Amino acid sequence: MAAYKILIAYDGTHYHGWQIQPNGISIQQLIEEKLKIVLRQEIKITGSGRTDAGVHAVGQVAHFHSDSLHAHKVLGSLNGLLPHDIRILSLEEAPSDFHAQYSALGKIYRYHLFLNQVMNPFKRLYTWHIRTPICHKNLQKGAEHFLGEHDFTTFANEAHSGVAAHDPVRVMKRVDIIQEEGGIFLEFEADGFLYKMVRNIVGTLVDVAIGKRDPSTIPLLFEKKDRREAGTAAPPQGLFLFKVLY
Amino acid sequence: MAAYKILIAYDGTHYHGWQIQPNGISIQQLIEEKLKIVLRQEIKITGSGRTDAGVHAVGQVAHFHSDSLHAHKVLGSLNGLLPHDIRILSLEEAPSDFHAQYSALGKIYRYHLFLNQVMNPFKRLYTWHIRTPICHKNLQKGAEHFLGEHDFTTFANEAHSGVAAHDPVRVMKRVDIIQEEGGIFLEFEADGFLYKMVRNIVGTLVDVAIGKRDPSTIPLLFEKKDRREAGTAAPPQGLFLFKVLY
Repeated sequence: MAAYKILIAYDGTHYHGWQIQPNGISIQQLIEEKLKIVLRQEIKITGSGRTDAGVHAVGQVAHFHSDSLHAHKVLGSLNGLLPHDIRILSLEEAPSDFHAQYSALGKIYRYHLFLNQVMNPFKRLYTWHIRTPICHKNLQKGAEHFLGEHDFTTFANEAHSGVAAHDPVRVMKRVDIIQEEGGIFLEFEADGFLYKMVRNIVGTLVDVAIGKRDPSTIPLLFEKKDRREAGTAAPPQGLFLFKVLY
Repeated sequence: MAAYKILIAYDGTHYHGWQIQPNGISIQQLIEEKLKIVLRQEIKITGSGRTDAGVHAVGQVAHFHSDSLHAHKVLGSLNGLLPHDIRILSLEEAPSDFHAQYSALGKIYRYHLFLNQVMNPFKRLYTWHIRTPICHKNLQKGAEHFLGEHDFTTFANEAHSGVAAHDPVRVMKRVDIIQEEGGIFLEFEADGFLYKMVRNIVGTLVDVAIGKRDPSTIPLLFEKKDRREAGTAAPPQGLFLFKVLY
């Protein structure tokens, strides 16, 4: 058996997220189904982590084990069978101990905010539309409070399993605010992210940017370690898993 | 009665084109329906020209006549009623003799080609995927043959009415080839375009770019004045009505 690493992009609009679940079609499930057809055996794939319903990915990573295979051919066959909103960007043999989740050193997420009064119809499924004028200075100030090592409990939901993360401490290396057509995106790089952490942080930062919350209150939020203290989670469609770092 | 000009963007994926027709929902029809609700009277709108099923617009223009109205309020109400893949970007009073089609001095269309081997799932509805490697030099040479004043009969389909354009001569001012993520787009500016002209030109240019046709044969195509001589029309989803010039 050899280990294989796949790089995956998907438009999450029509899916119930990455992870297999009873009440909807997941990206993991579709890839496993098509791998089974191509390789004629049951294949379990393991992703770098889940993405929720409606969340997108341009750089999700997963691994699986199988007998030696012709990577280029399998890549082509998989993409031929998968729906067009899921694409395997690459498939390559990996070191035998490679693990998409545990080998990851960090991740980069992007969250897109659309700021014009009238939505661009081509961005409706890929941004969060903020109609209230935002204060870039306060947004910047707010973002800086998330840098460094923190206990992110306030900004994490419990996973569906009902089990909180064993260790809620993460190191946020970057929170960049980048202009783009019609708005901005926030790029987050950390050694790892808790469940719904990016969307909860973005919800809080948008509150700060539109003047509903003072940026100086963020350190207090961390101290409270209570999810109810932070802002409402930002909606899924603005979020992209951009890159998994190994 | 006053004349009003609206600027419209739409994702054409789910529509049967701009123009009202019996067998599907058109953008014109939806806007007229919502205008009727907002203004409480039947309103006919006239577009700068049709776009076909699956073709997109970022800068379609239409006009209509009505009693004096509060532009900002009507704009908001219209966007509140329209589906999210159609947005009225602006609504303003125009000179009383303004006509979206006849006042137009020219138009700009963009056609997007996706050139990587594996499709970007976020571009699947907005580009034409060309898997064969293209020759940029030949594409450039081919594009230059379309510049200037020509009888474009070879590159025009008959309109659904079965009536060919009275005057098939148009002046192509620019055909620019512009790099973008994953591929290129072709930007066409002319004083006017015949029915399916951009898609027929792009079909021919892609034949040239992938080596199926020599660029030097294009002047001959113009001479033949026969649609069957040109390449297959490029598919609709790569085409954007970018701007109408007044």
